[in-house]
Amino acid sequence: MGRVTERRKVLRIRDGAVSSRPDTLVAEEPLEIRLNGRPLAITMRTPGDDFALAAGFLVSEGVLATDADLRNIVYCAGATADGTNTYNVVDVKTADGVVIPDITLERNVYTTSSCGLCGKASLDAVRTTTRHPIADTPPLRVGPELLAGLPDRLRASQRVFDRTGGLHAAALFDEDGELLDVREDVGRHNAVDKLVGRALQDGRLPLSRTILMVSGRASFELAQKAVMAGIPMLAAVSAPSSLAVDLAAETGLTLLGFLRGSSMNVYAGEDRIALRAAAARG
Amino acid sequence: MGRVTERRKVLRIRDGAVSSRPDTLVAEEPLEIRLNGRPLAITMRTPGDDFALAAGFLVSEGVLATDADLRNIVYCAGATADGTNTYNVVDVKTADGVVIPDITLERNVYTTSSCGLCGKASLDAVRTTTRHPIADTPPLRVGPELLAGLPDRLRASQRVFDRTGGLHAAALFDEDGELLDVREDVGRHNAVDKLVGRALQDGRLPLSRTILMVSGRASFELAQKAVMAGIPMLAAVSAPSSLAVDLAAETGLTLLGFLRGSSMNVYAGEDRIALRAAAARG
Repeated sequence: MGRVTERRKVLRIRDGAVSSRPDTLVAEEPLEIRLNGRPLAITMRTPGDDFALAAGFLVSEGVLATDADLRNIVYCAGATADGTNTYNVVDVKTADGVVIPDITLERNVYTTSSCGLCGKASLDAVRTTTRHPIADTPPLRVGPELLAGLPDRLRASQRVFDRTGGLHAAALFDEDGELLDVREDVGRHNAVDKLVGRALQDGRLPLSRTILMVSGRASFELAQKAVMAGIPMLAAVSAPSSLAVDLAAETGLTLLGFLRGSSMNVYAGEDRIALRAAAARG
Repeated sequence: MGRVTERRKVLRIRDGAVSSRPDTLVAEEPLEIRLNGRPLAITMRTPGDDFALAAGFLVSEGVLATDADLRNIVYCAGATADGTNTYNVVDVKTADGVVIPDITLERNVYTTSSCGLCGKASLDAVRTTTRHPIADTPPLRVGPELLAGLPDRLRASQRVFDRTGGLHAAALFDEDGELLDVREDVGRHNAVDKLVGRALQDGRLPLSRTILMVSGRASFELAQKAVMAGIPMLAAVSAPSSLAVDLAAETGLTLLGFLRGSSMNVYAGEDRIALRAAAARG
């Protein structure tokens, strides 16, 4: 397919000077994810890695936990009147015996019957739903120096961003700071889903000894995706939300924000950060 | 409620020095939007302006087009087992005679039966669904100098961002560059929904002679929200996606990206940009 970028004409204005030229844009198309033939969700995504995206989305939703839960994923031909395949509809078939949670509009990860809809219920639901409670034994432990090098490595591996400036990126690193995988997408959630889905397909879930780095902010939903995949550390270039911090604290996830060079904020799970004994706590 | 920000303890690491202090974070909580009592969607949002958010969301979905379509919006008490009101569930009641489109998981704005799921279908659906086709007569016409001043005005009006660094912003300007309204939210779609919903509540839809400015990228869904509200110009600080550009071209929306000081790219609807006659087109 190779539709990761597309060309469009653009009128450039620079200090009053006007020129017309072609520009490279990030491609965006709808993807419908079906589960055992039943339409489940539509997401606007950058085409490519669609099977990984669907698999990762279903990890976050609590449907898939390991590759054994997955039978196969196919593009649905015949979704259009003339029977052509738009490659925008995928069907995920689960293995025999996989229990499908009741995923309704009020997604199970957000609500519990006891408490109605509130932040606390959202936290409880993720904590009780994940089949990969964070359990890195011995605990992952990395120093600030290693963490300081991650943003540059993420940036250097963003191939499409360099051409379009239009993508979010997510990368997985191991405990030595080696880049394991990186994905880009017009949607920040999609980039993480693609990473996690690919790991599931490769039989690498839970991702117990990895660091997930994201190019933007750390929202509740990104923290949720880390927890559902058993990732013990999430680092974001920008700010976390209150609910992301609360989820991290409650599930044992280490959450870093504003990771920029040698500066970073640790919002939860600081035990995984190897601080020098001499460092004062002000 | 006033839960726009929350305080959490943070461990700051700066060039090896470690200190502990309280930090201000942007608040994030789930909001369930019900339509005439029926659960429709859940979004993670920054609390506040919840009625506007719900109204604006329903403009994008093609349910509401003017304030005459809206009967009222209420918080649902009793959503929890003990009957307390979490202020996280709102119910939007439509006026008599409002026809509710068939909003299923495959949202009507993304698909048409003739073509299945593809970008073209998404464009067609928005174009045929909007009740406010872009119709600024005489056309809105603004110069690059005026546009160049908008990012600073947006930034200056972001009150919560200054404290948290964690919000997306959306602002409405009139054709003279005067700020009409600004909203911030942890989710970029929500910030636009809050702007549009407030305008609907105030009887100001369609927003025929306004410029919508967003702090991040211009995705298809943001362009869709502009079109559904009758906004003729969308300006983004960062890159647009291919599908956002296509939607703009097809609906007559002027779309600017990379608006940074006196630099900007015009991707569609350049007739609304007042260029000096002398400016060469390279």
